[in-house]
Amino acid sequence: MSLIKWVNLKSIVDSRGELTIIEAQKDVSFDIKRIYYLTNLSPNMSRGYHAHRDLQQLAVCLVGNCRVLLDDGFEKCWVELGSDKAIRIEPMIWHEMHDFSDDCVFLVMASDKYDESDYIRDYTKFMEEVNNG
Amino acid sequence: MSLIKWVNLKSIVDSRGELTIIEAQKDVSFDIKRIYYLTNLSPNMSRGYHAHRDLQQLAVCLVGNCRVLLDDGFEKCWVELGSDKAIRIEPMIWHEMHDFSDDCVFLVMASDKYDESDYIRDYTKFMEEVNNG
Repeated sequence: MSLIKWVNLKSIVDSRGELTIIEAQKDVSFDIKRIYYLTNLSPNMSRGYHAHRDLQQLAVCLVGNCRVLLDDGFEKCWVELGSDKAIRIEPMIWHEMHDFSDDCVFLVMASDKYDESDYIRDYTKFMEEVNNG
Repeated sequence: MSLIKWVNLKSIVDSRGELTIIEAQKDVSFDIKRIYYLTNLSPNMSRGYHAHRDLQQLAVCLVGNCRVLLDDGFEKCWVELGSDKAIRIEPMIWHEMHDFSDDCVFLVMASDKYDESDYIRDYTKFMEEVNNG
């Protein structure tokens, strides 16, 4: 089973520009309780480096691109993330975002509000939970 | 009562870039059932030109800026929308988006899924509903 769960996005393009729509319970399997986005990114600085115990997320670059590492403790996959498709980041997936393009706008939709106790920020701890889970 | 309902946004800025978080039932008063975003916008082309009967929305430029016209049938207000604050677009507000900057990324969070019957796309009809409502 691949770690990479692509979600195709619906865009409507005309002379005015491009409109992209993402619907809860359809394109994402949850009502969206929180969104967050990254802008003014430094290309040489990476982000992420954590996993969630329960949170479900959908991530996409609205503009530009980056590389995402997904790791379930058994397998690692690199994803070239752009604006044409989103990826689901499921619970217990260690994820890192690297190599942001200068213009990158990275958006995440999340299934729940912020809860620090849902984060695993230490890779050794993550592997312990993978092996004991 | 002003038509302009600003919502301050929480951003965390460090050497990696800028992270902005918007939470349902907190920064917006609803669970987010749909998001949509505009990219690759033509600066000379305007968008919107409708009102919603019930839908609640929160709009922000993640990057760049534009001008938004809000009109409740009694009063018209122009908003310079950038990335520092969002605006609520409430039901029965005719809205138009103009003068997108070249780099503009315009994001909207909506309280419900798409429903064409919720749209009023004709200004005369809008004014009729305002006056009969």
